[in-house]
Amino acid sequence: MRLAMIGLGRMGSNLALRLMRGGHEVIGFDNNRANVDALAAQGGIAATSLEDLAGKFDGRRIFWVMLPAGAPTESTIETLCKIGSPGDIVIDGGNSFYKDDIRRAKSCSDCQIHYVDVGTSGGVWGLERGFCMMIGGEKEIVDLLDPVFDALAPGKGNLVPTRGRNLSDDRAERGYIHAGPAGAGHFVKMIHNGIEYGLMQAYAEGFDILKTKASEKLPEEERYTLDLTDIAEVWRRGSVISSWLLDLIAIGLAGDHDLAQFSGRVADSGEGRWTIDAAMEEAVPANVLTAALYARYRSRSDTTFGDKLLSAMRFGFGGHVEMPQ
Amino acid sequence: MRLAMIGLGRMGSNLALRLMRGGHEVIGFDNNRANVDALAAQGGIAATSLEDLAGKFDGRRIFWVMLPAGAPTESTIETLCKIGSPGDIVIDGGNSFYKDDIRRAKSCSDCQIHYVDVGTSGGVWGLERGFCMMIGGEKEIVDLLDPVFDALAPGKGNLVPTRGRNLSDDRAERGYIHAGPAGAGHFVKMIHNGIEYGLMQAYAEGFDILKTKASEKLPEEERYTLDLTDIAEVWRRGSVISSWLLDLIAIGLAGDHDLAQFSGRVADSGEGRWTIDAAMEEAVPANVLTAALYARYRSRSDTTFGDKLLSAMRFGFGGHVEMPQ
Amino acid sequence: MRLAMIGLGRMGSNLALRLMRGGHEVIGFDNNRANVDALAAQGGIAATSLEDLAGKFDGRRIFWVMLPAGAPTESTIETLCKIGSPGDIVIDGGNSFYKDDIRRAKSCSDCQIHYVDVGTSGGVWGLERGFCMMIGGEKEIVDLLDPVFDALAPGKGNLVPTRGRNLSDDRAERGYIHAGPAGAGHFVKMIHNGIEYGLMQAYAEGFDILKTKASEKLPEEERYTLDLTDIAEVWRRGSVISSWLLDLIAIGLAGDHDLAQFSGRVADSGEGRWTIDAAMEEAVPANVLTAALYARYRSRSDTTFGDKLLSAMRFGFGGHVEMPQ
Amino acid sequence: MRLAMIGLGRMGSNLALRLMRGGHEVIGFDNNRANVDALAAQGGIAATSLEDLAGKFDGRRIFWVMLPAGAPTESTIETLCKIGSPGDIVIDGGNSFYKDDIRRAKSCSDCQIHYVDVGTSGGVWGLERGFCMMIGGEKEIVDLLDPVFDALAPGKGNLVPTRGRNLSDDRAERGYIHAGPAGAGHFVKMIHNGIEYGLMQAYAEGFDILKTKASEKLPEEERYTLDLTDIAEVWRRGSVISSWLLDLIAIGLAGDHDLAQFSGRVADSGEGRWTIDAAMEEAVPANVLTAALYARYRSRSDTTFGDKLLSAMRFGFGGHVEMPQ
Repeated sequence: MRLAMIGLGRMGSNLALRLMRGGHEVIGFDNNRANVDALAAQGGIAATSLEDLAGKFDGRRIFWVMLPAGAPTESTIETLCKIGSPGDIVIDGGNSFYKDDIRRAKSCSDCQIHYVDVGTSGGVWGLERGFCMMIGGEKEIVDLLDPVFDALAPGKGNLVPTRGRNLSDDRAERGYIHAGPAGAGHFVKMIHNGIEYGLMQAYAEGFDILKTKASEKLPEEERYTLDLTDIAEVWRRGSVISSWLLDLIAIGLAGDHDLAQFSGRVADSGEGRWTIDAAMEEAVPANVLTAALYARYRSRSDTTFGDKLLSAMRFGFGGHVEMPQ
Repeated sequence: MRLAMIGLGRMGSNLALRLMRGGHEVIGFDNNRANVDALAAQGGIAATSLEDLAGKFDGRRIFWVMLPAGAPTESTIETLCKIGSPGDIVIDGGNSFYKDDIRRAKSCSDCQIHYVDVGTSGGVWGLERGFCMMIGGEKEIVDLLDPVFDALAPGKGNLVPTRGRNLSDDRAERGYIHAGPAGAGHFVKMIHNGIEYGLMQAYAEGFDILKTKASEKLPEEERYTLDLTDIAEVWRRGSVISSWLLDLIAIGLAGDHDLAQFSGRVADSGEGRWTIDAAMEEAVPANVLTAALYARYRSRSDTTFGDKLLSAMRFGFGGHVEMPQ
Repeated sequence: MRLAMIGLGRMGSNLALRLMRGGHEVIGFDNNRANVDALAAQGGIAATSLEDLAGKFDGRRIFWVMLPAGAPTESTIETLCKIGSPGDIVIDGGNSFYKDDIRRAKSCSDCQIHYVDVGTSGGVWGLERGFCMMIGGEKEIVDLLDPVFDALAPGKGNLVPTRGRNLSDDRAERGYIHAGPAGAGHFVKMIHNGIEYGLMQAYAEGFDILKTKASEKLPEEERYTLDLTDIAEVWRRGSVISSWLLDLIAIGLAGDHDLAQFSGRVADSGEGRWTIDAAMEEAVPANVLTAALYARYRSRSDTTFGDKLLSAMRFGFGGHVEMPQ
Repeated sequence: MRLAMIGLGRMGSNLALRLMRGGHEVIGFDNNRANVDALAAQGGIAATSLEDLAGKFDGRRIFWVMLPAGAPTESTIETLCKIGSPGDIVIDGGNSFYKDDIRRAKSCSDCQIHYVDVGTSGGVWGLERGFCMMIGGEKEIVDLLDPVFDALAPGKGNLVPTRGRNLSDDRAERGYIHAGPAGAGHFVKMIHNGIEYGLMQAYAEGFDILKTKASEKLPEEERYTLDLTDIAEVWRRGSVISSWLLDLIAIGLAGDHDLAQFSGRVADSGEGRWTIDAAMEEAVPANVLTAALYARYRSRSDTTFGDKLLSAMRFGFGGHVEMPQ
């Protein structure tokens, strides 16, 4: 199929390349001309503007928007709705908030344009491993796009099949699902990322306890100096906690045992926060996912006003002095 | 009554003074001779050693040990058991772990010495306000010591009586209780401190959100610059969250709006940790009390190895770079 | 001053009565005619509709809306904007979300009507104790309403003054503050409630550990049977954790030692959740306030799907069987 | 090598079988004679008592104890120390607390018996997949036992090697490590399990939010009915959160979409709790690991006294009624 990729950053260009490898034609556009040229050099079709790009389709147009969530995605989709013709398809493959999808799907629908949201996991490894996709939108349109998703997805590979699955629909086994109507794709992807935060923090705390076991916080006779690199490696083998994140930990520690190159200040993106919003709307207790998010907030501050307030109270009732030396 | 106070630091000397104001005779001992002299200057009886102190009783001796928990308390009580005679009473008024009380009560009992544990709250304000006491030990001995506890306790004051209380035993209303057998006093005091951590952290987080509402983390049009000093003050009046800790916050903020004098590194003592141990032994979920303790741990580190591990994973799957500039 | 109270439920009628006691004239309206009659019987002026009520003012009208947050408040304020004249004042004294205040203040302003938001704490005790108020809006209007707030507030009472306060503005000491522009009153009240959740949960967990110390979860020799009623009472006296909430706990336990009358299913209102939203917008870690909210969510479910998923995993890797007997 | 396996439950018998498949001779003993017979039927050597078992060695004896942690393991090791001869080796392959290992290693050492602790992960799948092992003890003894560990471990298999590893010691890649002196094996295994709890709870909360998205807690227009079975399956493919636990979730959901067979009451074992103890000893904040443990505690109670106390306070300040209908 012929498809336009709008946004040729790390994710967009990898998606485009994997689509071309799968036999699709990709028209590429990016505000950064160099990214467009890079794609063209690998066999893509260069577009100089959204209008130019829209002119490179014969029949039904398929626009895959791969831009930062928020204003860039929003304004691009608005423009595509104006440029597009009835029957065209706009796919938001970025990290949009699912309620924005619902709203956009409605306004696209007013122009008879179909809206599909695709939550995409795979990061920088997706080009080689394939992308895991969670899709929201109308059934007919998602079905129509099946060759696109099939090309992007990892495929069955040599993974052990799950015992007891009903095999009538094997899309999940090939690496993509039609999760539900508009927004459902990004909703599932959002929860995916919420879980990701929790998993990462579980490993982080565990390794922190292992590491600190050698520290001077403990009496000398209670210390162990553990080889975290070997521990990460051995847990990859037959242990209950083996995972792809653990594979990455093993790689990270193999290259830098003390992780001295990292500042310890950890960013978070919208999806972690939206997961907590969803938990609150549903009144689902999500202590682990929330604590994981808060640990990142805390990592970015040297101290907090709240910490000082604790000291002020301690000084007030007990005369404890916690001032800088 | 005549009573020996062993350990004349901030807490011990205040207890001794309040006892003397209540008409009791206090023999004081401390490794720091200056503390003993200070007490003597205010009417106390100076002792130069534990043996000297033991010699200043005619009949049944009452030893109140007010020393740091752990080794200092432990060794002093061992000595007192040797020095003492059958029928003597040893009171541990410090912050001992309740399981140590149970063990010590047994070994004291082997020497026919009575052991009483008293969890004492009141801090530097206790001299004037009185001390809140939670007592563990044999009923007859606790009853016998009643004049001591009565003198130390705040008394009924002008507090509104609790509707619906059965008034046969008014000790709780005067500020002390016989909580149960050996260890029960410190067990209740331990939970008291666990709750204290939780209350303090609840205020800390709330004021942190108030403070940060003025910060550049938020878009300019979403900021409020709030007067935290006035907020603490107004909450003291008729609000659901008025408390003595809030009174202390109001004092702290009145003197230093930004709490700039504090480092933000907050200590914790054994009781907070033991409360979590107890929660775990009882399989009681204690998310708030534990999070309060962990916030203090975190306040004392600039960063954690776990934070860096998060960055290492983020670099691994997404190429995100979180290194120092 | 003459003031209209719209909504004469528990809170509205108590506010009206306290205002009348303070010498103000109150016109009352409520969809439930019986509430209006009850107020009239105590000296209020009955109104039969919002229009009728608006007609009972000579000059500048002051409308105090005391209705459930959300649709009831929203539609009433819209109507008042239509009925009112330039210069009139609409006060939202309920539990509105502060972002709704900001929006409404703008739309009221389009009709030259002044909007004031008042976060009100005091519950069923406010009539006697006075109400603690956090106020947002234009300075001139808040100043103009000062006699109203003064009458509602607790006043200085016999509370110990806070050491070190600058006394030029004593409103906070009398029980109300002008927190800032529109929304600031409800923002501060929202954080107040967030803190309230945290405080309550800290006590809840502590008492849970005390209570469970007598349970069969522990070996018999490790149990204490503690008198929680006395413990709550004694902590009111000179302890660091004395508070108004603790006073309520003491009352609650005095009447019902086992709290057997309660189901254990605990509601939450918007303010707890919005506090967490604010924490997330500001990237402030709020582990305690969040855990307090989640404990309430969890209290309302017998089990969760997540719990079952844990069992499914345990069965998967270890053959552990956690099925109903 | 010839080795005695003491304890032929699920884990012990699987270890024995895998050892025999690897060419080792296993003498088996279990209090349940049937377990011994079952092993003998598959080629093992039956022993009728610990003494009998000890008599079936020519030279240095190797005892692998695979019993429940606590009293059974403790008393067996005591007996083996008496029965054994200088130079013999006792391996504790169960889930012992690492501080017990340190103590036991010392007392074994007094009898010139070598003590090795092996934390073993792999569950019911270990027979086929191999066991992941974390080993503590003297270097010479661990080296001497290498053929045993090699036979039990998964081996390198077809796992992608970790980029950047130094290959001089490939034991970690084959699935076992010598973590350090006595206790280090079980310490690392303990943290492994602590992490496991955190990972499991992260998935549990995420799937709970997905599931509840279809519930009547939400307005109808905000619901999605998601196919959790397909979601688990698709996340196995190329997503950041793929893991072995997720494979198990996929299997569990494929067989029982609603997990209706599970009660939702989830057990915990010592290792999760000890991990929190370790975090507290090291003052490492471990919010996620702790919250994961507490979720299991909470899952086993219908309600808590703390929940009721919240309702008592709410009734006290607001007249809110939360009693059973």
